Amino acid sequence: MKLYDLEPSGNCYKVRLFAALANIDVEIVLVDFLGGEHKRPPLTDLNPWGELPILVDGDLVLRDSQAILVYLAGAYGGGAWWPSEPHLQAQVVQWLSTASNEVQNGPAAARLVDKFGYAINKADTLSRSARILPLLDAHLAQRQWLAVSRPTIADCAVFPYVALAAEGGISLTPYANILRWIDRVKALPGFLSMPGV
Amino acid sequence: MKLYDLEPSGNCYKVRLFAALANIDVEIVLVDFLGGEHKRPPLTDLNPWGELPILVDGDLVLRDSQAILVYLAGAYGGGAWWPSEPHLQAQVVQWLSTASNEVQNGPAAARLVDKFGYAINKADTLSRSARILPLLDAHLAQRQWLAVSRPTIADCAVFPYVALAAEGGISLTPYANILRWIDRVKALPGFLSMPGV
Repeated sequence: MKLYDLEPSGNCYKVRLFAALANIDVEIVLVDFLGGEHKRPPLTDLNPWGELPILVDGDLVLRDSQAILVYLAGAYGGGAWWPSEPHLQAQVVQWLSTASNEVQNGPAAARLVDKFGYAINKADTLSRSARILPLLDAHLAQRQWLAVSRPTIADCAVFPYVALAAEGGISLTPYANILRWIDRVKALPGFLSMPGV
Repeated sequence: MKLYDLEPSGNCYKVRLFAALANIDVEIVLVDFLGGEHKRPPLTDLNPWGELPILVDGDLVLRDSQAILVYLAGAYGGGAWWPSEPHLQAQVVQWLSTASNEVQNGPAAARLVDKFGYAINKADTLSRSARILPLLDAHLAQRQWLAVSRPTIADCAVFPYVALAAEGGISLTPYANILRWIDRVKALPGFLSMPGV
């Protein structure tokens, strides 16, 4: 099983983090991102979107970090990280959507501007971050983990770009519940870090 | 089971559409959106995000249309629309992420500007649409349905705001495969429409 990976990408880190926490063996294939390897064949044959990560397991090819988490957890995670009950899966999916939209277009996009010089409207990323972070903080006031009473792929999906917020010029100091949740994630057995986290 | 609903919302329509296709009985509760009912208690007690739809089924309260689709399909859909195998679930989740991010911030956001006067950067919504629609069209060149060989909640999640693209000033004429897919969705037994579709 191969993960086409970019080390500074928080979306790739989602997958590396989960694989480490769930003790799933994944072969890392480093992609020459600056050289545009992900924007041309053979990588665009795997993912026409020209994005990373990409997971290849036999005949299965997956784009989108949230989908990869669902697959790894469902196929190799033993049920702990991606429950089988519909009402619990739905509670996890709420946060996969949040990771895909509000976190990606908020703190993750702010970091793309500051750290990598992307031509994205910084004010828009800050405005989106100023909405999602207080909602996340309030949600965590009475909970240890995002979706259910134990860590799930919801936490793995939301964690990277929230923990990397400072690299987009966003301080987490106002968000005490988020900071405590970050500490809890970091204390999980098998936790894997990345630069900036 | 209650759906807190707004008729012109494509996110609410995702849920109404799927409930109709899967013949699931949902009580519609119309929300006074213009009066801001979704921005104050008791609705913000159900969903602090101040958004619609919200689904309430007994003790379970769900925000996020993608999560609601997963729940309805898993709990009441008999497995046809949300498969149980991890590799198939992941293929569906790829498109739930696309609905949550690229479609929401592309065609859906363009419609929010044109139809409802939202203060969103229209050029950004058009630029995002100009990226996602060709990818979607190319994906559908060799496939009948988005995720697997039958219709799933992936199609229900992506369909509304793509089918409503004209209301954001976006023509689907260049995208013949998307237009044929829209026709296939509309031909499904039990299909429910909404104004603009």
